[in-house]
Amino acid sequence: MSEPLPHQPLTMAQIAAAAGVSIPTVSKVINQRADVAPATRERVERVMTEYGYVVNRAARSLRTGQSGQIDFVVQSLHSDYACEILRGVEDALASTEVRVVLASTHDYQQRERQWVQRLADGSTDGAILVLADKQSIHLQELRRRNIPFVVVDALGELGPDDLSVSATNLSGGKTATRYLLSLGHRRIAALMGPADHPCTQDRLTGYRLALQDAGIPIDPALIRYGDFHPASAYREMTSLLALPEPPTAVFVGNDQQCLGVYKALHEHGMPVPGAMSVVGFDDMPYSSQLAPALTTIRQPLLEMGRVATKMLLRLIAGEPVDTVRVELATPLIKRESCGSPRENC
Amino acid sequence: MSEPLPHQPLTMAQIAAAAGVSIPTVSKVINQRADVAPATRERVERVMTEYGYVVNRAARSLRTGQSGQIDFVVQSLHSDYACEILRGVEDALASTEVRVVLASTHDYQQRERQWVQRLADGSTDGAILVLADKQSIHLQELRRRNIPFVVVDALGELGPDDLSVSATNLSGGKTATRYLLSLGHRRIAALMGPADHPCTQDRLTGYRLALQDAGIPIDPALIRYGDFHPASAYREMTSLLALPEPPTAVFVGNDQQCLGVYKALHEHGMPVPGAMSVVGFDDMPYSSQLAPALTTIRQPLLEMGRVATKMLLRLIAGEPVDTVRVELATPLIKRESCGSPRENC
Repeated sequence: MSEPLPHQPLTMAQIAAAAGVSIPTVSKVINQRADVAPATRERVERVMTEYGYVVNRAARSLRTGQSGQIDFVVQSLHSDYACEILRGVEDALASTEVRVVLASTHDYQQRERQWVQRLADGSTDGAILVLADKQSIHLQELRRRNIPFVVVDALGELGPDDLSVSATNLSGGKTATRYLLSLGHRRIAALMGPADHPCTQDRLTGYRLALQDAGIPIDPALIRYGDFHPASAYREMTSLLALPEPPTAVFVGNDQQCLGVYKALHEHGMPVPGAMSVVGFDDMPYSSQLAPALTTIRQPLLEMGRVATKMLLRLIAGEPVDTVRVELATPLIKRESCGSPRENC
Repeated sequence: MSEPLPHQPLTMAQIAAAAGVSIPTVSKVINQRADVAPATRERVERVMTEYGYVVNRAARSLRTGQSGQIDFVVQSLHSDYACEILRGVEDALASTEVRVVLASTHDYQQRERQWVQRLADGSTDGAILVLADKQSIHLQELRRRNIPFVVVDALGELGPDDLSVSATNLSGGKTATRYLLSLGHRRIAALMGPADHPCTQDRLTGYRLALQDAGIPIDPALIRYGDFHPASAYREMTSLLALPEPPTAVFVGNDQQCLGVYKALHEHGMPVPGAMSVVGFDDMPYSSQLAPALTTIRQPLLEMGRVATKMLLRLIAGEPVDTVRVELATPLIKRESCGSPRENC
């Protein structure tokens, strides 16, 4: 055989493993930064020299701070939510040489074991984890191997040094409820997502605080839970309409659920916003196109994916990251689905 | 340094490049299939032996026919269409050890050059290409390097041996139009996607054939083009309503455009299906949740992604593939957005 076998560019994770240091340390050495102990620098450089022809190639692209492979770890892509975040990740990588590998676990243990094996192979330089919690095997393995990661929408508390990006859910819940109050509504339902989801809890706390500030007692009959899908919201909205004193407005856990709410209202001949005001949460691409266009709290999913990816790239490059926990704003997007209760027919 | 540097598992593409054979040939040798020339088998086995410690590892997982890395090549993920196909790809890989790498080109020449470089590195075993045509650099490079690929929704003709998966667009257009005819409609508009898109041409041909069969002359004023997004359809629907003799039904190029159609009709106080029947194309996850639920032609995007991936895995494994060009059926999904024109108010 005359030609040498072609090699994939070494990842930083592989150099780090061989030198017994962290990935950011390798990155610092390659980028000729000063903040590395001389002995450590020497060890990394020795590894790089020994594997010269491969490392030179990796080094060349690493010097631009942009080579490598990151994992997008998510339970499944079967939600608009996950796809929006992935779009943000892709956008942030568009001008880099980093590629993203999908690591949907589908809750298969086999898939999770394979993923752990890949980490051991050193084939990933970092990871974006969606909806992970401190107990997740992914997070534990990444931490153990010193592989950088950023969590998007963490489920519960993370470690003090773990980076995460989320939206200001509490503030968003408050904004939505205050807006409905400002229009004159007093019976405002909260048709949330799953009860045990931290997002739900935060959004509901915002709802409660806003009502409390306005001196309106909380009516437990007006607080409902769905599963983020339209059918659950359709059911709960139908049930809310059957109350002796139904709400005149509803704050909904996500835009997808609003489809079910619109459907229930349509079937009951209740025009939006004439007979019922509706505020969503997310601002999905289709939300402005609904009839009537949905007033909603914008959860910047795309931006969350983008910001998390940029943080991860800095982390991999050994550059300082200003904030461990980033919360992106959740502004109210006023469209056509809210009106005053006086307009009710 | 005491520990050997960890290596990524060799891809079949790398073994193939070193042995100067195709990927399916490598796969056949590993799987100990009979249909390989003895000299070729020997050459591949020599490469595998020389790189023993790596190849044994790859071979072990390759024997299951399931190791490796495939690329998902798409212009961008910023459409529900692309995400649905990607979900299908992910589903088909759920029980395998193959991971998918996103190769969104964003139409950046730099990204395309990087991708070609990756092919040269041998880091991909195959590719799923969405909306590629014969002229695309991706397709040419894959063919040149003998890397297996499957095209989903090819734009125009492919080579005689190129594998592709699509939907029966012509038949779908016919089905939609015939259904509207069966309800009694005679003035049926076609509010299609982009005029130069092969899907559009096929769906429109179906529409024309159905009208022709029913003895109804084609009225060019009723044929409109959008860009697959709601705003364009909103514009064209508004314009259709301003005709001296507006249509009583509309066959729409995709479900996303139906959002714009619904919006235009809502603003003109025209109930669906009372004043206008609407048939979409795609059957997106949200389409059953619209108010009224959208009657549509199902384009099985998820299934297209799944089938393409299974074909690609067979191709990589050197197994026979029955059909070069697979067209999946496009059934009518009857819901609530169509009625007879006699019901018009």
